[in-house]
Amino acid sequence: LANIHPALQLHVLETMTAPQLVALDTMNLWIETTPDELAAVLAKVDVLLVNDSEARLLTGKRSLAHAAEAIRAMGPQLVIVKKGEHGALFFGRQGVLSVPAIILDDVIDPTGAGDCFAGGFMRSLAEAGATRDSSDGVFRQAMLDGTVTASFCPEGFNVEGLLKIDDDLYSNRMATLKGMMEA
Amino acid sequence: LANIHPALQLHVLETMTAPQLVALDTMNLWIETTPDELAAVLAKVDVLLVNDSEARLLTGKRSLAHAAEAIRAMGPQLVIVKKGEHGALFFGRQGVLSVPAIILDDVIDPTGAGDCFAGGFMRSLAEAGATRDSSDGVFRQAMLDGTVTASFCPEGFNVEGLLKIDDDLYSNRMATLKGMMEA
Repeated sequence: LANIHPALQLHVLETMTAPQLVALDTMNLWIETTPDELAAVLAKVDVLLVNDSEARLLTGKRSLAHAAEAIRAMGPQLVIVKKGEHGALFFGRQGVLSVPAIILDDVIDPTGAGDCFAGGFMRSLAEAGATRDSSDGVFRQAMLDGTVTASFCPEGFNVEGLLKIDDDLYSNRMATLKGMMEA
Repeated sequence: LANIHPALQLHVLETMTAPQLVALDTMNLWIETTPDELAAVLAKVDVLLVNDSEARLLTGKRSLAHAAEAIRAMGPQLVIVKKGEHGALFFGRQGVLSVPAIILDDVIDPTGAGDCFAGGFMRSLAEAGATRDSSDGVFRQAMLDGTVTASFCPEGFNVEGLLKIDDDLYSNRMATLKGMMEA
């Protein structure tokens, strides 16, 4: 459920027959102007993707640990907090994963990087046949795929950065990301 | 060389006989007001610890990849960029490591967390007998030790948070940190 009016998100969801996994993205506009409709759809969602300021706005909690806990009480058991150039956090059933953003030589335009993250994340889950009951490992891999996908976005305007992706570029960047996490 | 006037840092360094490894911390004040003295001491340093805004101020580069490259040309071959609640980056000889900050339930006062990071980092290197020629692995472990040490700082005022550290607390938090990096 990409970032549209929450009443419309709920309508889209209701047209689907027994989805195995539902993820939702939202934003400050809906959190502030349509909180009741947002609460109604959140109650039916498995994964919430928001950025750090939205997580704090939605829950009123400064600590992201407390914010994730508060979001769980609203419905989504899996919480992803996107932090732009600082990467993303995954609050799963077996603890927290932090994935850094890949360090880019040149940033042309970061617009849409969060959406590319969500797209790469969902593509990874779809390929793995994930459901809401899948283990954290499946979601952790999807966090890496989201991060690698998103890394191409700021390197061009519009979809320019994405159009250049091929298997070699993708796997090289995945190797770079894993190297950045190797303590 | 903790964060004091760069001319004084240079004087401190000159009183030492053949140090095996020299790390330096600095800040916006010296970058802006005493750039020549800072350049003189930087030329004799192996590791620079700065935060992300200082790295950009020092080099005039927005991209941290370019900033790290520019810092290498000034002297320090190993660059650490601290990012507060977003963790820290290590630009080593064999690539970049990103270490997340440990997610804390409650933050009382983050003052001094960067200094605790530097202290834990240097303690780790000292125990390992590290020199400027040590492999990246030794510095990567020191990044984890800096991060774990720093995590206790914001949990109290002044040194309160540090005083409660014992072996169990330290190794539990190290396990949490490694779990956060396990893709």
